[in-house]
Amino acid sequence: MSRRPVIVIHGGAWAIPDKLATGSIDGVKAAATTGYRVLQDGGTAVDAVEAAIVVLENHPAFDAGYGSVLNANGEVEMDAVLMTGHNLQCGGVACVQNIKNPIKLARAVMDKTDHTLLVGLGSNQFAEEIGMEKVSTDDLVTEDAKAEWKEFMKFKTTVNVLFRNRDVKLSGCDTVGAVALDNAGNVAFGTSTGGITAKRPGRVGDRSGGYADNTSGAVSTTGHGESIVKVCLARQITFNMEQGLSAQEATEKALQSMANRVQGSGGAVTVSKDGDIGKHFTTERMAWSWIKDGQLHYGLNPGEDFSQAV
Amino acid sequence: MSRRPVIVIHGGAWAIPDKLATGSIDGVKAAATTGYRVLQDGGTAVDAVEAAIVVLENHPAFDAGYGSVLNANGEVEMDAVLMTGHNLQCGGVACVQNIKNPIKLARAVMDKTDHTLLVGLGSNQFAEEIGMEKVSTDDLVTEDAKAEWKEFMKFKTTVNVLFRNRDVKLSGCDTVGAVALDNAGNVAFGTSTGGITAKRPGRVGDRSGGYADNTSGAVSTTGHGESIVKVCLARQITFNMEQGLSAQEATEKALQSMANRVQGSGGAVTVSKDGDIGKHFTTERMAWSWIKDGQLHYGLNPGEDFSQAV
Repeated sequence: MSRRPVIVIHGGAWAIPDKLATGSIDGVKAAATTGYRVLQDGGTAVDAVEAAIVVLENHPAFDAGYGSVLNANGEVEMDAVLMTGHNLQCGGVACVQNIKNPIKLARAVMDKTDHTLLVGLGSNQFAEEIGMEKVSTDDLVTEDAKAEWKEFMKFKTTVNVLFRNRDVKLSGCDTVGAVALDNAGNVAFGTSTGGITAKRPGRVGDRSGGYADNTSGAVSTTGHGESIVKVCLARQITFNMEQGLSAQEATEKALQSMANRVQGSGGAVTVSKDGDIGKHFTTERMAWSWIKDGQLHYGLNPGEDFSQAV
Repeated sequence: MSRRPVIVIHGGAWAIPDKLATGSIDGVKAAATTGYRVLQDGGTAVDAVEAAIVVLENHPAFDAGYGSVLNANGEVEMDAVLMTGHNLQCGGVACVQNIKNPIKLARAVMDKTDHTLLVGLGSNQFAEEIGMEKVSTDDLVTEDAKAEWKEFMKFKTTVNVLFRNRDVKLSGCDTVGAVALDNAGNVAFGTSTGGITAKRPGRVGDRSGGYADNTSGAVSTTGHGESIVKVCLARQITFNMEQGLSAQEATEKALQSMANRVQGSGGAVTVSKDGDIGKHFTTERMAWSWIKDGQLHYGLNPGEDFSQAV
């Protein structure tokens, strides 16, 4: 029995409020279904990851693309990155404005430049060069995002408040991400986010967002970006797999280590080179889904694992 | 005999032309001496790293701070990052313009914000907020940098040309960096660069620049940033030390692996938590220096190791 193809999705690890629960689950299920279809049709892992993330970026429940949160200046700045595991090619954009799908621009950075990361005005200059449509900030912002921006501007250090104070249950930090294993045995990851409400302009949280290497597997991370970068969370998970841990053990161990070392909470989804799946979160909730062998699994709260045929 | 304190400096790994050889060696020696003095006076590892990098940024031979290269738009965009190994705190700026010492702004991001990376206009907005002096682009640009920009604009893909074609001997890619071990046993790293001549605006090469963790040691990387990020070079070197390799073995093995896997060349300096030193480069030259036990060592070409008392 083939263990390929596989796709795993997350919609962000944080204290997701009840009002977003149904939308988040619907979104990650739709993204998994779209990505899986690409893989079934013979598409590459990175094609599937990109297609899945476009679904999540276009969904208002998630803080990525449409639905992104506002920074301290009241603007939308988005980050996205993807990577393919057979040759370690990667592409990313950070603090890009006024485009609908940052993951598509990240893909173009990988495919059309010899750089791996373009930030700020330079990323928008590149978007113009390749003829990517410009959208207005209003086209990216939901009424919820506007309301939360007003609420968050009361705090001085939103990043720490958001992840450490469980009484503060607002949206505004749900990075989305996907990992995939295709029929040819290649892995890929992609991650996209609007960041954290009322963040400083120019802030980049997790500057890697994940890792993908055919010799171990692929990981997409979410949560407190500043903690994730300190411990190189995604690379740690792939190192753990290289040391013989399963995808699930590798993911749990690295997230626990991050909690112990820098008191940071977050989540990750992982697929090993053999198609084994890992998913774990140390936050209150994480919307996740995966499809393998024609079965769709999904959940939101700790311990949940619902399934249905695709 | 105490193995502390220790400081190790690099001035960039690439095909350094003869006209810059003496200046590069003088610069790394001066930076090591400045950093070592901070450590002898009881300063922390991150204090020493910052002081050493200010010397390198202010030195015209290096592509960092004064002497930075010009991007494709003819502007200066600089990146700098530092990290302290006892709590994994880090701070960085990318694509910042019009400040004299990016490493000082990176330090301020670490000390004064709850973020770890600010990019583009947001990093300049932060510099203004903390009252950092603004300088003109002309204050950062040497006549050499201007001449090379004109030469490089003839190429379409400068990044690959520069690192793969040994016949192209121009300056414009010498990241500077430092690692240190202080009397309290803490390690730190810092890295600063003006990037690659004629790079796209907004390009960030190596988005990590190094790694520092008291449980293993500290690393500062240099070379082809796009390759370095693909293999997480600095974290790989600290993983190699965690697996029992010496600082030198860990550094050599990771750089060789990068050459094999993504055909990328570069260099790194490393200090282990016990004060052992690693330095290696797969490029033609790398200016380096270190001080330990009152002895200054330095070199530029493969196999060189000159020494003198401090």
